[in-house]
Amino acid sequence: MRIRKAVITAAGPSQRGLPQQNLVDRDGVQKTALRIVIEEATSAGVEEVCIVHCPGDREAYAKAAGDVGARLTFVPQESPRGYGHAVYCAREFVAGDPFLHLVSDHLHISQTSLRCAQQVVQVAERENCAVSAVQATRESMLPYYGTVGGTRVSKQPDLYTIERVVEKPTPTEAEQSLIVPGLRAGRYLCFFGIHVLTPAVMDLLAELIEKSTPSDRLQLSDALNRLAGKERYLALEVRGQRYNIGVKYGLLMAQLALGFEGQDRDEILTLLVELLATRQQVRS
Amino acid sequence: MRIRKAVITAAGPSQRGLPQQNLVDRDGVQKTALRIVIEEATSAGVEEVCIVHCPGDREAYAKAAGDVGARLTFVPQESPRGYGHAVYCAREFVAGDPFLHLVSDHLHISQTSLRCAQQVVQVAERENCAVSAVQATRESMLPYYGTVGGTRVSKQPDLYTIERVVEKPTPTEAEQSLIVPGLRAGRYLCFFGIHVLTPAVMDLLAELIEKSTPSDRLQLSDALNRLAGKERYLALEVRGQRYNIGVKYGLLMAQLALGFEGQDRDEILTLLVELLATRQQVRS
Repeated sequence: MRIRKAVITAAGPSQRGLPQQNLVDRDGVQKTALRIVIEEATSAGVEEVCIVHCPGDREAYAKAAGDVGARLTFVPQESPRGYGHAVYCAREFVAGDPFLHLVSDHLHISQTSLRCAQQVVQVAERENCAVSAVQATRESMLPYYGTVGGTRVSKQPDLYTIERVVEKPTPTEAEQSLIVPGLRAGRYLCFFGIHVLTPAVMDLLAELIEKSTPSDRLQLSDALNRLAGKERYLALEVRGQRYNIGVKYGLLMAQLALGFEGQDRDEILTLLVELLATRQQVRS
Repeated sequence: MRIRKAVITAAGPSQRGLPQQNLVDRDGVQKTALRIVIEEATSAGVEEVCIVHCPGDREAYAKAAGDVGARLTFVPQESPRGYGHAVYCAREFVAGDPFLHLVSDHLHISQTSLRCAQQVVQVAERENCAVSAVQATRESMLPYYGTVGGTRVSKQPDLYTIERVVEKPTPTEAEQSLIVPGLRAGRYLCFFGIHVLTPAVMDLLAELIEKSTPSDRLQLSDALNRLAGKERYLALEVRGQRYNIGVKYGLLMAQLALGFEGQDRDEILTLLVELLATRQQVRS
């Protein structure tokens, strides 16, 4: 299996504007958030990227993407029927191929020389199956993430076979069905915002959409839970961090993390010290 | 003289997108950069705000402004004829009244209970003349700013009578005509990005535009230099800091400054420590 396509969802009503936010990447270059997410995908070998957006945002997002060396396809999500439905909007683009999927409201910073998406794609291509990036996450953060239950793949310390997926589980649900042997107590495997998915996901989403009403908000996790019952589906503990740029101070923290991990580390620290010194001077 | 109108210039080709950048203000509320600039104006008593923009940006900027409790007027700068010309585009809006003028690529953080624009408007209303905010700035920063020469107003330590204005002077020009008695050696009074201007400025801009060719880039400083020869025109050393959000890491520094000065100071410091701790943990 070879991953040549990526689907980036950027259609959440609360996400509008996020792809256009300006940041300085680890390489010291000013880029929009959307461009950083697209580069995460192209770094993993992706050649075609589909961006699912709210109607009306196409032009702004095309400008924010710039010239990225990949073929870009823009697909509007005509009605706000949820995250799962947004992924489903890319079904014609996907056209029966496996694909990388990234969300546009998170940035991912790797702690190795391989970017986070590369780590996931590498495992998916080797294992020839769907792989979701996960991170061991404290129970208190369960209200924010899709969470997986499963068992460790033997002799592969970062890899798990996914048995079920629950969107934003309660602590009780998590305790009953999502405890993964070998993790520290009170920690669960939560989604990281990067997946390699097989075309079967589009069929599962189609089934769920057929049963739903237009006012339902379809979760991707519901389809992924079904995928786990149907195909081999792995979770990879990625070596990196995710930064949600949609929350308060999320952009600030993402920018600081990019700065601290990047080539301008010393410049950032100097600016921080200067800023604190200026405040002191003005106050004294 | 009472200031009821403000002109915000947001038409610089390199500024496009800046008004839509998301920040958290000192009050802990998420806002766009444009909204923070508009609130700087309304905090000073302004009731009507004119935003001069590139053709095509009106809708995005109206969305970025949101509902600010002031009447907003959008005026396109149809051709990129420079900063002075952008101000001139607001002449019908200004309609013979004095006005506050702010740039959209800087944020201003006051070190007193009065916001920076309030400090300037207060002096202009009291002195009944044009007032530009300035800051004593190191010689090395002259390539970035309009710079004023003049003399201190007696018994008013923060106030100067402006005699001339030079846009981005060379160190030699500055030494010859812009040294202000009483400032530390090697420091000059550079513009801060906030002005209260009289309608005479629009007439002076009209004269300069009439003499220029369409390829000339008209500087506001040229008109302000003429204003100094025509009317009483003061410079106020504002108690605050300016943050250029258009430069690399400018948004980061502005956000940190807003955070350190605002109600979420402790939260920001906690997040910073957590970020540094996470990096340490991952690396060890």
